Amino acid sequence: MIKKDGIFLIVGLGLIGGSYAKGLKKQGYTVYAISRGQQTIDYALENHIIDKGAVREDPVLIGQADYIIFGLYPHAMIDWIARNQRHFKPGALLTDVCGVKCNVVDKVQEFLRDDVEFIGSHPMAGKEVSGVQNSDETIFYTANFIVTPTEHNTEKGVGFAKELARLLGFYHVASLTPQEHDKMIGFVSQLTHAVAVSLMNTSDNTHLKEYTGDSFRDLTRIAKINETLWTELFFLNKKNLVQEIDDFVAELENLKQKIACEDEAGIKQLFVQSTERRKQFDK
Amino acid sequence: MIKKDGIFLIVGLGLIGGSYAKGLKKQGYTVYAISRGQQTIDYALENHIIDKGAVREDPVLIGQADYIIFGLYPHAMIDWIARNQRHFKPGALLTDVCGVKCNVVDKVQEFLRDDVEFIGSHPMAGKEVSGVQNSDETIFYTANFIVTPTEHNTEKGVGFAKELARLLGFYHVASLTPQEHDKMIGFVSQLTHAVAVSLMNTSDNTHLKEYTGDSFRDLTRIAKINETLWTELFFLNKKNLVQEIDDFVAELENLKQKIACEDEAGIKQLFVQSTERRKQFDK
Repeated sequence: MIKKDGIFLIVGLGLIGGSYAKGLKKQGYTVYAISRGQQTIDYALENHIIDKGAVREDPVLIGQADYIIFGLYPHAMIDWIARNQRHFKPGALLTDVCGVKCNVVDKVQEFLRDDVEFIGSHPMAGKEVSGVQNSDETIFYTANFIVTPTEHNTEKGVGFAKELARLLGFYHVASLTPQEHDKMIGFVSQLTHAVAVSLMNTSDNTHLKEYTGDSFRDLTRIAKINETLWTELFFLNKKNLVQEIDDFVAELENLKQKIACEDEAGIKQLFVQSTERRKQFDK
Repeated sequence: MIKKDGIFLIVGLGLIGGSYAKGLKKQGYTVYAISRGQQTIDYALENHIIDKGAVREDPVLIGQADYIIFGLYPHAMIDWIARNQRHFKPGALLTDVCGVKCNVVDKVQEFLRDDVEFIGSHPMAGKEVSGVQNSDETIFYTANFIVTPTEHNTEKGVGFAKELARLLGFYHVASLTPQEHDKMIGFVSQLTHAVAVSLMNTSDNTHLKEYTGDSFRDLTRIAKINETLWTELFFLNKKNLVQEIDDFVAELENLKQKIACEDEAGIKQLFVQSTERRKQFDK
Protein backbone atom coordinates (compact mmCIF):
# COMPACT_ATOMS: atom_id res chain seq x y z
CA MET A 1 0.00 0.00 0.00
CA ILE A 2 2.96 2.31 0.60
CA LYS A 3 3.80 3.52 -2.93
CA LYS A 4 7.28 2.59 -4.10
CA ASP A 5 7.67 6.11 -5.55
CA GLY A 6 6.12 7.78 -2.50
CA ILE A 7 8.09 10.48 -0.71
CA PHE A 8 8.73 10.26 3.03
CA LEU A 9 9.33 13.37 5.14
CA ILE A 10 10.92 12.94 8.57
CA VAL A 11 10.35 15.89 10.88
CA GLY A 12 12.91 15.83 13.69
CA LEU A 13 15.98 13.92 12.64
CA GLY A 14 17.30 12.61 15.95
CA LEU A 15 18.21 9.09 16.97
CA ILE A 16 14.80 7.62 16.12
CA GLY A 17 14.00 9.86 13.13
CA GLY A 18 17.46 9.16 11.73
CA SER A 19 17.00 5.42 12.19
CA TYR A 20 13.68 5.58 10.30
CA ALA A 21 15.45 7.49 7.51
CA LYS A 22 18.23 4.91 7.23
CA GLY A 23 15.77 2.01 7.20
CA LEU A 24 13.60 3.62 4.54
CA LYS A 25 16.56 4.53 2.33
CA LYS A 26 17.71 0.91 2.59
CA GLN A 27 14.32 -0.10 1.17
CA GLY A 28 14.80 2.28 -1.75
CA TYR A 29 12.46 5.09 -0.73
CA THR A 30 12.97 8.82 -1.23
CA VAL A 31 13.44 10.47 2.15
CA TYR A 32 13.31 14.19 2.99
CA ALA A 33 13.93 15.68 6.39
CA ILE A 34 13.25 18.87 8.30
CA SER A 35 15.22 19.32 11.48
CA ARG A 36 16.66 22.17 13.50
CA GLY A 37 20.43 22.35 13.25
CA GLN A 38 22.33 22.74 10.02
CA GLN A 39 24.88 20.19 11.23
CA THR A 40 22.19 17.53 11.47
CA ILE A 41 20.98 18.13 7.93
CA ASP A 42 24.52 18.39 6.51
CA TYR A 43 25.52 15.14 8.20
CA ALA A 44 22.43 13.34 6.91
CA LEU A 45 22.96 14.59 3.34
CA GLU A 46 26.68 13.77 3.32
CA ASN A 47 26.01 10.27 4.59
CA HIS A 48 23.12 9.69 2.15
CA ILE A 49 20.67 9.19 5.00
CA ILE A 50 18.27 11.64 3.28
CA ASP A 51 17.77 12.94 -0.26
CA LYS A 52 16.78 16.49 0.63
CA GLY A 53 16.74 18.43 3.86
CA ALA A 54 15.93 21.79 5.40
CA VAL A 55 16.33 23.48 8.76
CA ARG A 56 13.27 25.67 8.12
CA GLU A 57 9.64 24.54 7.94
CA ASP A 58 9.84 24.58 4.14
CA PRO A 59 6.35 24.57 2.52
CA VAL A 60 7.72 22.97 -0.66
CA LEU A 61 9.28 19.96 1.09
CA ILE A 62 6.22 19.57 3.30
CA GLY A 63 3.85 19.78 0.31
CA GLN A 64 5.66 17.05 -1.62
CA ALA A 65 5.49 14.40 1.12
CA ASP A 66 3.10 11.47 0.81
CA TYR A 67 4.10 10.14 4.22
CA ILE A 68 5.24 12.20 7.18
CA ILE A 69 6.90 10.76 10.29
CA PHE A 70 7.28 13.00 13.33
CA GLY A 71 10.38 12.30 15.39
CA LEU A 72 9.60 15.22 17.73
CA TYR A 73 8.70 15.37 21.42
CA PRO A 74 4.89 15.33 21.98
CA HIS A 75 4.17 19.03 22.57
CA ALA A 76 6.61 20.16 19.89
CA MET A 77 4.88 17.85 17.41
CA ILE A 78 1.38 19.07 18.23
CA ASP A 79 2.50 22.69 17.77
CA TRP A 80 4.37 21.88 14.54
CA ILE A 81 1.33 20.22 12.96
CA ALA A 82 -0.95 23.10 14.00
CA ARG A 83 1.47 25.58 12.41
CA ASN A 84 2.14 23.69 9.17
CA GLN A 85 -0.88 21.59 8.33
CA ARG A 86 -2.01 24.03 5.67
CA HIS A 87 1.03 22.88 3.61
CA PHE A 88 0.24 19.14 3.75
CA LYS A 89 -0.43 17.35 0.45
CA PRO A 90 -4.05 16.19 0.27
CA GLY A 91 -4.21 12.50 1.21
CA ALA A 92 -0.93 12.56 3.14
CA LEU A 93 -0.53 9.93 5.85
CA LEU A 94 1.09 11.00 9.14
CA THR A 95 2.47 9.10 12.10
CA ASP A 96 4.61 9.75 15.15
CA VAL A 97 7.04 8.02 17.54
CA CYS A 98 5.74 9.36 20.89
CA GLY A 99 5.93 7.17 23.99
CA VAL A 100 2.48 8.34 25.19
CA LYS A 101 -0.65 8.26 23.00
CA CYS A 102 -3.61 9.73 24.96
CA ASN A 103 -3.40 13.53 25.13
CA VAL A 104 -1.32 13.38 21.94
CA VAL A 105 -3.13 11.40 19.23
CA ASP A 106 -6.55 12.76 20.22
CA LYS A 107 -5.28 16.35 20.30
CA VAL A 108 -3.83 16.12 16.79
CA GLN A 109 -6.86 14.32 15.36
CA GLU A 110 -9.16 16.96 16.84
CA PHE A 111 -7.77 19.85 14.81
CA LEU A 112 -6.29 18.04 11.81
CA ARG A 113 -7.53 18.77 8.28
CA ASP A 114 -10.10 16.25 7.01
CA ASP A 115 -8.17 15.35 3.86
CA VAL A 116 -5.10 13.96 5.65
CA GLU A 117 -4.84 11.22 8.30
CA PHE A 118 -2.79 10.91 11.50
CA ILE A 119 -2.30 7.39 12.89
CA GLY A 120 -0.52 7.10 16.23
CA SER A 121 2.31 4.65 16.61
CA HIS A 122 5.08 3.88 19.09
CA PRO A 123 8.35 2.20 18.10
CA MET A 124 9.56 0.67 21.41
CA ALA A 125 13.22 1.04 20.57
CA GLY A 126 16.00 3.27 21.80
CA LYS A 127 19.58 3.72 22.73
CA GLU A 128 21.42 5.49 25.56
CA VAL A 129 22.78 8.05 23.10
CA SER A 130 21.02 10.62 20.91
CA GLY A 131 21.34 12.40 17.59
CA VAL A 132 21.32 11.38 13.92
CA GLN A 133 25.02 10.52 14.22
CA ASN A 134 24.05 7.62 16.49
CA SER A 135 21.02 6.52 14.47
CA ASP A 136 20.92 2.83 13.64
CA GLU A 137 18.08 1.07 11.85
CA THR A 138 19.05 -2.29 13.34
CA ILE A 139 17.67 -1.27 16.77
CA PHE A 140 14.22 -2.01 15.30
CA TYR A 141 14.95 -5.65 14.49
CA THR A 142 14.40 -6.81 18.08
CA ALA A 143 11.76 -4.20 19.01
CA ASN A 144 7.99 -3.93 19.32
CA PHE A 145 5.96 -1.51 17.20
CA ILE A 146 2.56 -0.50 18.52
CA VAL A 147 -0.17 1.06 16.38
CA THR A 148 -2.91 2.93 18.26
CA PRO A 149 -5.96 3.46 16.03
CA THR A 150 -8.96 5.55 17.10
CA GLU A 151 -12.39 6.15 15.59
CA HIS A 152 -10.77 8.85 13.43
CA ASN A 153 -8.63 6.31 11.60
CA THR A 154 -9.33 4.37 8.44
CA GLU A 155 -8.15 0.94 7.31
CA LYS A 156 -5.80 2.75 4.97
CA GLY A 157 -4.19 4.70 7.81
CA VAL A 158 -3.79 1.66 10.06
CA GLY A 159 -2.43 -0.35 7.12
CA PHE A 160 0.13 2.37 6.43
CA ALA A 161 1.51 2.26 9.99
CA LYS A 162 1.69 -1.54 10.04
CA GLU A 163 3.37 -1.70 6.63
CA LEU A 164 5.86 0.94 7.76
CA ALA A 165 6.75 -1.25 10.76
CA ARG A 166 7.26 -4.27 8.54
CA LEU A 167 9.38 -2.26 6.06
CA LEU A 168 11.61 -1.20 8.95
CA GLY A 169 11.98 -4.77 10.16
CA PHE A 170 10.32 -4.51 13.59
CA TYR A 171 10.25 -7.82 15.45
CA HIS A 172 6.63 -7.60 16.53
CA VAL A 173 3.73 -5.38 15.43
CA ALA A 174 0.69 -4.98 17.70
CA SER A 175 -2.43 -2.86 17.82
CA LEU A 176 -3.75 -1.29 21.03
CA THR A 177 -6.14 1.54 21.83
CA PRO A 178 -4.35 4.68 23.08
CA GLN A 179 -5.81 3.91 26.53
CA GLU A 180 -4.50 0.34 26.56
CA HIS A 181 -1.14 1.55 25.28
CA ASP A 182 -0.74 4.16 28.00
CA LYS A 183 -1.75 1.76 30.77
CA MET A 184 0.78 -0.79 29.50
CA ILE A 185 3.56 1.77 29.10
CA GLY A 186 2.80 3.20 32.57
CA PHE A 187 3.84 -0.14 34.04
CA VAL A 188 6.41 -1.57 31.67
CA SER A 189 8.38 1.60 31.00
CA GLN A 190 7.40 4.56 33.16
CA LEU A 191 7.16 2.81 36.55
CA THR A 192 10.53 1.15 35.92
CA HIS A 193 12.12 4.53 35.14
CA ALA A 194 10.51 6.09 38.24
CA VAL A 195 11.89 3.23 40.35
CA ALA A 196 15.41 3.46 38.91
CA VAL A 197 15.52 7.25 39.36
CA SER A 198 14.29 6.98 42.96
CA LEU A 199 16.77 4.20 43.80
CA MET A 200 19.55 6.47 42.61
CA ASN A 201 18.14 9.45 44.52
CA THR A 202 17.33 7.70 47.82
CA SER A 203 20.57 8.88 49.32
CA ASP A 204 23.95 9.79 47.95
CA ASN A 205 25.41 6.32 47.78
CA THR A 206 28.06 7.07 45.18
CA HIS A 207 30.70 6.24 47.82
CA LEU A 208 29.39 2.67 47.62
CA LYS A 209 30.33 2.31 43.99
CA GLU A 210 33.27 0.02 44.72
CA TYR A 211 30.86 -2.45 46.36
CA THR A 212 28.16 -2.55 43.72
CA GLY A 213 27.78 -5.50 41.42
CA ASP A 214 25.70 -6.23 38.35
CA SER A 215 22.34 -6.25 40.20
CA PHE A 216 22.58 -2.66 41.32
CA ARG A 217 23.92 -1.53 37.93
CA ASP A 218 21.10 -3.35 36.10
CA LEU A 219 18.43 -1.74 38.27
CA THR A 220 19.75 1.79 37.87
CA ARG A 221 21.02 1.90 34.27
CA ILE A 222 17.89 3.81 33.14
CA ALA A 223 18.34 6.35 35.94
CA LYS A 224 20.42 8.19 33.33
CA ILE A 225 17.47 9.90 31.74
CA ASN A 226 16.67 12.77 29.35
CA GLU A 227 14.96 15.17 31.75
CA THR A 228 13.07 17.16 29.09
CA LEU A 229 11.54 14.21 27.24
CA TRP A 230 10.68 12.18 30.33
CA THR A 231 9.08 15.10 32.17
CA GLU A 232 6.74 15.46 29.20
CA LEU A 233 6.02 11.72 29.01
CA PHE A 234 5.38 11.41 32.77
CA PHE A 235 3.03 14.42 32.86
CA LEU A 236 1.10 13.25 29.78
CA ASN A 237 0.48 9.86 31.43
CA LYS A 238 0.11 11.20 34.96
CA LYS A 239 -3.01 9.29 35.98
CA ASN A 240 -1.74 5.86 34.98
CA LEU A 241 1.73 6.42 36.37
CA VAL A 242 0.54 7.70 39.76
CA GLN A 243 -1.70 4.62 40.03
CA GLU A 244 1.18 2.29 39.14
CA ILE A 245 3.45 3.92 41.72
CA ASP A 246 0.71 3.55 44.37
CA ASP A 247 0.23 -0.14 43.53
CA PHE A 248 3.96 -0.79 43.56
CA VAL A 249 4.49 1.01 46.89
CA ALA A 250 1.62 -1.02 48.42
CA GLU A 251 3.32 -4.23 47.27
CA LEU A 252 6.70 -3.13 48.64
CA GLU A 253 5.08 -2.17 51.97
CA ASN A 254 3.50 -5.62 52.05
CA LEU A 255 6.95 -7.20 51.66
CA LYS A 256 8.34 -4.87 54.33
CA GLN A 257 5.64 -5.87 56.83
CA LYS A 258 6.49 -9.52 56.30
CA ILE A 259 10.17 -8.75 56.95
CA ALA A 260 9.37 -6.65 60.04
CA CYS A 261 7.28 -9.38 61.68
CA GLU A 262 9.42 -12.23 60.28
CA ASP A 263 6.52 -13.90 58.50
CA GLU A 264 8.58 -16.69 56.98
CA ALA A 265 5.79 -18.46 55.09
CA GLY A 266 4.44 -15.16 53.79
CA ILE A 267 7.74 -13.86 52.46
CA LYS A 268 8.67 -17.19 50.87
CA GLN A 269 5.36 -17.15 49.04
CA LEU A 270 6.21 -13.69 47.63
CA PHE A 271 9.63 -14.92 46.47
CA VAL A 272 8.14 -18.03 44.86
CA GLN A 273 5.54 -15.91 43.04
CA SER A 274 8.07 -13.39 41.72
CA THR A 275 10.33 -16.23 40.58
CA GLU A 276 7.49 -17.99 38.74
CA ARG A 277 6.32 -14.80 37.03
CA ARG A 278 9.78 -13.64 36.06
CA LYS A 279 10.58 -16.98 34.42
CA GLN A 280 7.83 -16.27 31.90
CA PHE A 281 9.71 -13.17 30.78
CA ASP A 282 12.89 -15.06 29.94
CA LYS A 283 13.44 -15.04 26.24
CA MET B 1 51.00 -16.72 55.58
CA ILE B 2 48.72 -19.46 54.25
CA LYS B 3 50.98 -22.53 54.38
CA LYS B 4 51.65 -24.13 51.01
CA ASP B 5 51.16 -27.58 52.60
CA GLY B 6 48.11 -26.47 54.61
CA ILE B 7 44.87 -28.39 54.22
CA PHE B 8 41.62 -26.61 53.33
CA LEU B 9 38.24 -28.01 54.29
CA ILE B 10 35.15 -26.69 52.50
CA VAL B 11 31.93 -27.32 54.37
CA GLY B 12 28.95 -27.04 51.98
CA LEU B 13 30.08 -27.68 48.44
CA GLY B 14 27.57 -25.66 46.44
CA LEU B 15 28.16 -23.04 43.77
CA ILE B 16 30.34 -20.83 45.96
CA GLY B 17 32.01 -23.60 47.98
CA GLY B 18 32.77 -25.46 44.76
CA SER B 19 34.23 -22.33 43.18
CA TYR B 20 36.52 -21.87 46.22
CA ALA B 21 37.61 -25.51 45.88
CA LYS B 22 38.43 -25.12 42.17
CA GLY B 23 40.36 -21.90 42.77
CA LEU B 24 42.38 -23.39 45.62
CA LYS B 25 43.17 -26.59 43.70
CA LYS B 26 44.38 -24.42 40.82
CA GLN B 27 46.83 -22.83 43.27
CA GLY B 28 48.10 -26.26 44.29
CA TYR B 29 46.43 -26.63 47.69
CA THR B 30 45.00 -29.80 49.23
CA VAL B 31 41.23 -29.43 49.48
CA TYR B 32 38.80 -31.60 51.46
CA ALA B 33 35.04 -31.19 51.50
CA ILE B 34 32.07 -32.15 53.62
CA SER B 35 28.69 -31.76 51.99
CA ARG B 36 25.30 -33.44 52.12
CA GLY B 37 24.59 -35.47 49.01
CA GLN B 38 26.74 -38.35 47.81
CA GLN B 39 26.34 -37.10 44.22
CA THR B 40 27.99 -33.79 45.11
CA ILE B 41 31.00 -35.48 46.68
CA ASP B 42 31.29 -38.08 43.89
CA TYR B 43 31.15 -35.36 41.22
CA ALA B 44 33.79 -33.29 43.02
CA LEU B 45 36.14 -36.27 43.43
CA GLU B 46 35.70 -37.46 39.84
CA ASN B 47 36.41 -33.98 38.52
CA HIS B 48 39.42 -33.45 40.81
CA ILE B 49 37.77 -30.46 42.48
CA ILE B 50 38.63 -31.96 45.89
CA ASP B 51 41.14 -34.49 47.21
CA LYS B 52 38.94 -36.11 49.84
CA GLY B 53 35.27 -35.79 50.69
CA ALA B 54 32.55 -37.00 53.03
CA VAL B 55 28.80 -36.65 53.37
CA ARG B 56 29.01 -37.08 57.16
CA GLU B 57 30.51 -34.66 59.67
CA ASP B 58 33.68 -36.75 59.75
CA PRO B 59 35.89 -35.92 62.82
CA VAL B 60 39.05 -37.10 61.03
CA LEU B 61 38.60 -34.77 58.01
CA ILE B 62 37.60 -31.90 60.29
CA GLY B 63 40.58 -32.47 62.59
CA GLN B 64 43.11 -32.39 59.74
CA ALA B 65 42.05 -29.00 58.35
CA ASP B 66 44.23 -25.94 58.88
CA TYR B 67 41.72 -23.69 57.11
CA ILE B 68 37.95 -24.18 57.04
CA ILE B 69 35.61 -22.33 54.68
CA PHE B 70 31.88 -22.54 55.35
CA GLY B 71 29.74 -22.46 52.21
CA LEU B 72 26.55 -22.95 54.25
CA TYR B 73 23.52 -20.71 54.86
CA PRO B 74 23.92 -18.60 58.04
CA HIS B 75 21.84 -20.58 60.55
CA ALA B 76 23.06 -23.94 59.22
CA MET B 77 26.65 -22.75 59.65
CA ILE B 78 26.16 -21.54 63.22
CA ASP B 79 24.59 -24.88 64.18
CA TRP B 80 27.33 -26.84 62.37
CA ILE B 81 30.13 -25.05 64.20
CA ALA B 82 28.42 -25.48 67.57
CA ARG B 83 28.05 -29.22 66.91
CA ASN B 84 31.56 -29.86 65.56
CA GLN B 85 33.94 -27.36 67.07
CA ARG B 86 35.34 -29.95 69.48
CA HIS B 87 36.93 -31.63 66.41
CA PHE B 88 38.75 -28.52 65.13
CA LYS B 89 42.55 -28.63 64.96
CA PRO B 90 44.09 -26.17 67.47
CA GLY B 91 45.05 -22.99 65.63
CA ALA B 92 42.64 -23.61 62.76
CA LEU B 93 41.46 -20.51 60.86
CA LEU B 94 37.79 -20.36 59.85
CA THR B 95 35.84 -18.11 57.49
CA ASP B 96 32.44 -18.03 55.80
CA VAL B 97 30.68 -16.70 52.69
CA CYS B 98 27.48 -15.31 54.28
CA GLY B 99 25.81 -12.23 52.80
CA VAL B 100 25.01 -10.81 56.26
CA LYS B 101 27.63 -10.40 59.02
CA CYS B 102 25.93 -9.03 62.18
CA ASN B 103 23.95 -11.76 63.96
CA VAL B 104 26.28 -14.28 62.32
CA VAL B 105 29.92 -13.41 62.99
CA ASP B 106 29.21 -12.23 66.55
CA LYS B 107 27.16 -15.37 67.34
CA VAL B 108 29.96 -17.70 66.22
CA GLN B 109 32.70 -15.71 67.92
CA GLU B 110 30.71 -15.74 71.17
CA PHE B 111 30.77 -19.50 71.64
CA LEU B 112 33.88 -20.46 69.64
CA ARG B 113 36.82 -22.23 71.27
CA ASP B 114 39.65 -19.86 72.25
CA ASP B 115 42.35 -21.77 70.34
CA VAL B 116 40.77 -21.32 66.87
CA GLU B 117 39.74 -18.13 65.07
CA PHE B 118 36.70 -17.22 62.95
CA ILE B 119 37.05 -14.24 60.62
CA GLY B 120 33.91 -13.13 58.73
CA SER B 121 34.12 -12.54 55.01
CA HIS B 122 31.73 -12.03 52.09
CA PRO B 123 32.65 -12.89 48.51
CA MET B 124 30.27 -10.66 46.49
CA ALA B 125 29.99 -13.09 43.60
CA GLY B 126 27.27 -15.36 42.31
CA LYS B 127 25.45 -16.90 39.44
CA GLU B 128 21.79 -17.54 38.64
CA VAL B 129 22.39 -21.29 38.94
CA SER B 130 23.42 -23.43 41.92
CA GLY B 131 25.37 -26.58 42.78
CA VAL B 132 28.97 -27.73 42.51
CA GLN B 133 28.31 -28.71 38.87
CA ASN B 134 27.94 -25.00 38.06
CA SER B 135 30.86 -23.84 40.18
CA ASP B 136 33.33 -21.59 38.41
CA GLU B 137 36.33 -19.93 40.02
CA THR B 138 36.43 -17.22 37.34
CA ILE B 139 33.33 -15.51 38.85
CA PHE B 140 35.70 -14.11 41.48
CA TYR B 141 37.94 -12.29 39.02
CA THR B 142 35.54 -9.33 38.67
CA ALA B 143 34.12 -9.47 42.21
CA ASN B 144 34.56 -7.73 45.56
CA PHE B 145 35.69 -9.57 48.68
CA ILE B 146 34.85 -8.00 52.01
CA VAL B 147 36.57 -8.94 55.27
CA THR B 148 34.70 -7.99 58.47
CA PRO B 149 37.03 -8.09 61.48
CA THR B 150 35.80 -7.58 65.04
CA GLU B 151 37.59 -7.16 68.38
CA HIS B 152 37.80 -10.99 68.54
CA ASN B 153 40.07 -11.12 65.50
CA THR B 154 43.85 -11.04 65.31
CA GLU B 155 46.15 -9.77 62.58
CA LYS B 156 46.77 -13.37 61.67
CA GLY B 157 43.06 -14.06 61.14
CA VAL B 158 42.48 -10.92 59.06
CA GLY B 159 45.64 -11.65 57.06
CA PHE B 160 44.37 -15.16 56.35
CA ALA B 161 41.08 -13.89 54.89
CA LYS B 162 42.78 -11.24 52.75
CA GLU B 163 45.38 -13.68 51.46
CA LEU B 164 42.62 -16.17 50.63
CA ALA B 165 40.88 -13.48 48.54
CA ARG B 166 44.09 -12.72 46.68
CA LEU B 167 44.79 -16.43 46.07
CA LEU B 168 41.32 -16.75 44.54
CA GLY B 169 41.89 -13.74 42.30
CA PHE B 170 39.22 -11.37 43.62
CA TYR B 171 39.19 -8.01 41.85
CA HIS B 172 38.97 -5.90 44.98
CA VAL B 173 39.52 -6.69 48.67
CA ALA B 174 38.09 -4.36 51.32
CA SER B 175 37.69 -4.33 55.08
CA LEU B 176 34.49 -3.15 56.81
CA THR B 177 33.01 -3.62 60.27
CA PRO B 178 30.08 -6.07 60.31
CA GLN B 179 27.82 -3.05 60.93
CA GLU B 180 29.18 -1.10 57.95
CA HIS B 181 28.94 -4.22 55.80
CA ASP B 182 25.31 -4.85 56.65
CA LYS B 183 24.29 -1.23 56.08
CA MET B 184 26.01 -1.26 52.69
CA ILE B 185 24.52 -4.61 51.69
CA GLY B 186 21.05 -3.48 52.83
CA PHE B 187 21.14 -0.82 50.14
CA VAL B 188 23.26 -2.25 47.34
CA SER B 189 21.89 -5.77 47.35
CA GLN B 190 18.87 -6.31 49.59
CA LEU B 191 16.87 -3.18 48.68
CA THR B 192 17.41 -3.91 44.98
CA HIS B 193 16.14 -7.48 45.44
CA ALA B 194 13.11 -6.23 47.42
CA VAL B 195 12.34 -3.75 44.62
CA ALA B 196 12.67 -6.32 41.85
CA VAL B 197 10.47 -8.84 43.68
CA SER B 198 7.82 -6.19 44.37
CA LEU B 199 7.85 -4.94 40.76
CA MET B 200 7.15 -8.48 39.64
CA ASN B 201 4.43 -8.97 42.27
CA THR B 202 2.64 -5.61 41.86
CA SER B 203 0.05 -7.22 39.62
CA ASP B 204 0.04 -10.17 37.30
CA ASN B 205 1.47 -8.47 34.27
CA THR B 206 2.75 -11.59 32.55
CA HIS B 207 0.30 -10.88 29.70
CA LEU B 208 2.46 -7.80 28.97
CA LYS B 209 5.52 -9.88 28.21
CA GLU B 210 5.31 -9.25 24.48
CA TYR B 211 5.63 -5.52 25.15
CA THR B 212 8.54 -5.55 27.57
CA GLY B 213 11.99 -4.47 26.51
CA ASP B 214 15.41 -4.57 28.09
CA SER B 215 14.61 -2.01 30.81
CA PHE B 216 11.90 -4.09 32.40
CA ARG B 217 13.94 -7.28 32.06
CA ASP B 218 17.01 -5.61 33.63
CA LEU B 219 14.99 -4.37 36.61
CA THR B 220 13.37 -7.71 37.35
CA ARG B 221 16.11 -10.26 36.55
CA ILE B 222 16.87 -10.73 40.26
CA ALA B 223 13.16 -11.30 41.03
CA LYS B 224 14.06 -14.95 40.38
CA ILE B 225 15.29 -15.60 43.89
CA ASN B 226 16.15 -18.52 46.18
CA GLU B 227 13.38 -18.15 48.76
CA THR B 228 15.12 -20.06 51.56
CA LEU B 229 18.44 -18.21 51.44
CA TRP B 230 16.94 -14.75 50.92
CA THR B 231 14.37 -15.11 53.68
CA GLU B 232 17.26 -15.83 56.05
CA LEU B 233 19.36 -12.91 54.73
CA PHE B 234 16.43 -10.43 54.90
CA PHE B 235 15.47 -11.42 58.46
CA LEU B 236 19.08 -11.27 59.67
CA ASN B 237 19.41 -7.72 58.35
CA LYS B 238 15.84 -6.65 59.14
CA LYS B 239 16.56 -3.30 60.74
CA ASN B 240 18.77 -1.97 57.94
CA LEU B 241 16.52 -3.28 55.18
CA VAL B 242 13.29 -1.87 56.66
CA GLN B 243 15.02 1.51 56.94
CA GLU B 244 16.24 1.36 53.33
CA ILE B 245 12.75 0.47 52.08
CA ASP B 246 11.28 3.39 54.07
CA ASP B 247 13.85 5.83 52.61
CA PHE B 248 13.28 4.55 49.09
CA VAL B 249 9.48 4.75 49.37
CA ALA B 250 9.78 8.34 50.66
CA GLU B 251 11.88 9.22 47.61
CA LEU B 252 9.45 7.56 45.22
CA GLU B 253 6.53 9.37 46.89
CA ASN B 254 8.44 12.62 46.45
CA LEU B 255 8.74 11.91 42.72
CA LYS B 256 5.05 10.98 42.58
CA GLN B 257 4.01 14.26 44.19
CA LYS B 258 6.00 16.18 41.60
CA ILE B 259 4.24 14.24 38.83
CA ALA B 260 0.81 14.74 40.40
CA CYS B 261 1.18 18.52 40.67
CA GLU B 262 3.22 18.82 37.45
CA ASP B 263 6.18 20.44 39.17
CA GLU B 264 8.34 20.65 36.07
CA ALA B 265 11.41 22.27 37.64
CA GLY B 266 11.25 19.86 40.59
CA ILE B 267 11.04 16.69 38.53
CA LYS B 268 13.75 17.80 36.12
CA GLN B 269 16.04 18.36 39.08
CA LEU B 270 15.41 14.76 40.23
CA PHE B 271 16.22 13.43 36.74
CA VAL B 272 19.39 15.51 36.50
CA GLN B 273 20.52 14.29 39.93
CA SER B 274 19.88 10.61 39.16
CA THR B 275 21.69 10.98 35.84
CA GLU B 276 24.73 12.61 37.46
CA ARG B 277 24.94 10.02 40.21
CA ARG B 278 24.45 7.04 37.94
CA LYS B 279 27.22 8.18 35.62
CA GLN B 280 29.67 7.68 38.48
CA PHE B 281 28.74 4.00 38.56
CA ASP B 282 29.64 3.42 34.92
CA LYS B 283 32.71 1.26 34.75
